[in-house]
Amino acid sequence: MTKLFPDVPADRFLPGHPLRRCRGFIFDVDGVLCRGEDPIPRAPEAIERLRRGGKKVIFISNNSTKSRKDYIAKFERLGIPVTEEDLVLSTYATAWYVALEQPGAKVYMVGASGLRAELEGAGLELVEDPFQAEYVVVGSPFDSTGRVREDNAHRITGALRALYHAGAKFVATNPDRIFPAKDGVIPGTGAVIGALSYMLDREPDAIIGKPSKYIVEIALSRLGIPPGDCAIVGDMDTDMLAGERAGMVRVFVRSGAMTEEKLRSLGIEPDFAFDSVIDMLTWEGG
Amino acid sequence: MTKLFPDVPADRFLPGHPLRRCRGFIFDVDGVLCRGEDPIPRAPEAIERLRRGGKKVIFISNNSTKSRKDYIAKFERLGIPVTEEDLVLSTYATAWYVALEQPGAKVYMVGASGLRAELEGAGLELVEDPFQAEYVVVGSPFDSTGRVREDNAHRITGALRALYHAGAKFVATNPDRIFPAKDGVIPGTGAVIGALSYMLDREPDAIIGKPSKYIVEIALSRLGIPPGDCAIVGDMDTDMLAGERAGMVRVFVRSGAMTEEKLRSLGIEPDFAFDSVIDMLTWEGG
Repeated sequence: MTKLFPDVPADRFLPGHPLRRCRGFIFDVDGVLCRGEDPIPRAPEAIERLRRGGKKVIFISNNSTKSRKDYIAKFERLGIPVTEEDLVLSTYATAWYVALEQPGAKVYMVGASGLRAELEGAGLELVEDPFQAEYVVVGSPFDSTGRVREDNAHRITGALRALYHAGAKFVATNPDRIFPAKDGVIPGTGAVIGALSYMLDREPDAIIGKPSKYIVEIALSRLGIPPGDCAIVGDMDTDMLAGERAGMVRVFVRSGAMTEEKLRSLGIEPDFAFDSVIDMLTWEGG
Repeated sequence: MTKLFPDVPADRFLPGHPLRRCRGFIFDVDGVLCRGEDPIPRAPEAIERLRRGGKKVIFISNNSTKSRKDYIAKFERLGIPVTEEDLVLSTYATAWYVALEQPGAKVYMVGASGLRAELEGAGLELVEDPFQAEYVVVGSPFDSTGRVREDNAHRITGALRALYHAGAKFVATNPDRIFPAKDGVIPGTGAVIGALSYMLDREPDAIIGKPSKYIVEIALSRLGIPPGDCAIVGDMDTDMLAGERAGMVRVFVRSGAMTEEKLRSLGIEPDFAFDSVIDMLTWEGG
């Protein structure tokens, strides 16, 4: 690892720092390391300090359209060096959730090419005939302008048939409803979940992304550290809920979309709260 | 009106027949007059008898993709002469529901060309810019093979923006979930309702088709006869519910998709039940 900040000490958690005992850190991305394309100040330094102090670090995101390979470029722009091994996106976590439940399962997919890549990477068999499907996996089929990618519109019918006729299991990458975008909001995976759930009067069998614990559990298994010795660092209620469900230490940062007041008004009490990730590192008590 | 059955008397409702006092009849189509493309035996004769006996007759359907003009050909194949004035499809009823609530309203539409024709026919202004919309009207965008028509996939995003940013009202032609088709089930309007409802955590402001009373009320206003003097004739729970909500006499026929046993197991007691529409006419007591 290149030393971007050679003058900072290896582990800035002082004796008595409540996070000193944590050996693993799972970071949410947007609102924690960046806001859209803009980096959060000193976030790269904070990550390097943790790594040099011997902490293990994983980054998680509910993104359902990109593979981990796609995501590396985003981290390069943020100035945080990562490999695929450091990333757990909902595409990847979903693929592994299915692959662990039924290795090599036949999957009918609705979603983007990044999801396809991760499903294939987990050894699953993608099928075009809905009647052959053992699983239906849905991610967002919308691009950043709100247009449906490729032939995904017609795949709603395929997914419906796989669930209705073939008895496939129904797994969704994340429950995200809408996102802000340049010309107005755009739909998330929730559009597909809603369409299928309404038609079949049935919820998905599993939703992998936050606030579910599944995505966090996939990250924890990567860290190989018990959840009680790991912290989740996020800016949203969904991060804190996923962390709580997995039994982790929950760290809220005020650098994202949700205020701490709003978080607490939802009845969620994080274990710790800091202005941003660098403040978590430099905290000296108080 | 051509006399298809010149030898039958004008009004076969005998004195004492419980439907004798009904002056208007609203008929469901599929399961009552036909099953798919196959006519129900003697249904055309039954309709002609009623008409010649001075009864007013209207046909209603939850179909959300066809205009009344499109539907005339279907009736010709069944051997039942109709004009547009005799038909109340959910496309037409939805257009008039909106036009009565806000004449000339700006509408952003998801659906097929038959819906577009009826919206225009009711004097509504169809807009392509979601930010201009006062209403979002959704019908089924799927064709009979389950493929999405034209650019409707991308219209989910437009409808979302009209509801989210422009505060448009949300009106759906019908709540139908799925339909049987040649290669497996196909989605109904419910796919669009589900997608938008999930994303916005909001139900439609109005759903016009059965089991809602709105479509029946549009038909009743066409008949110009009080609901208590009109019968609804249908083969489904949704027909009976719509009739009940509108205060009509409810006639169940056993010629369609739902058994009378199933209907009653849903807690619905029709006022009368017959094997088919001709049996309603020829009933002589018992």
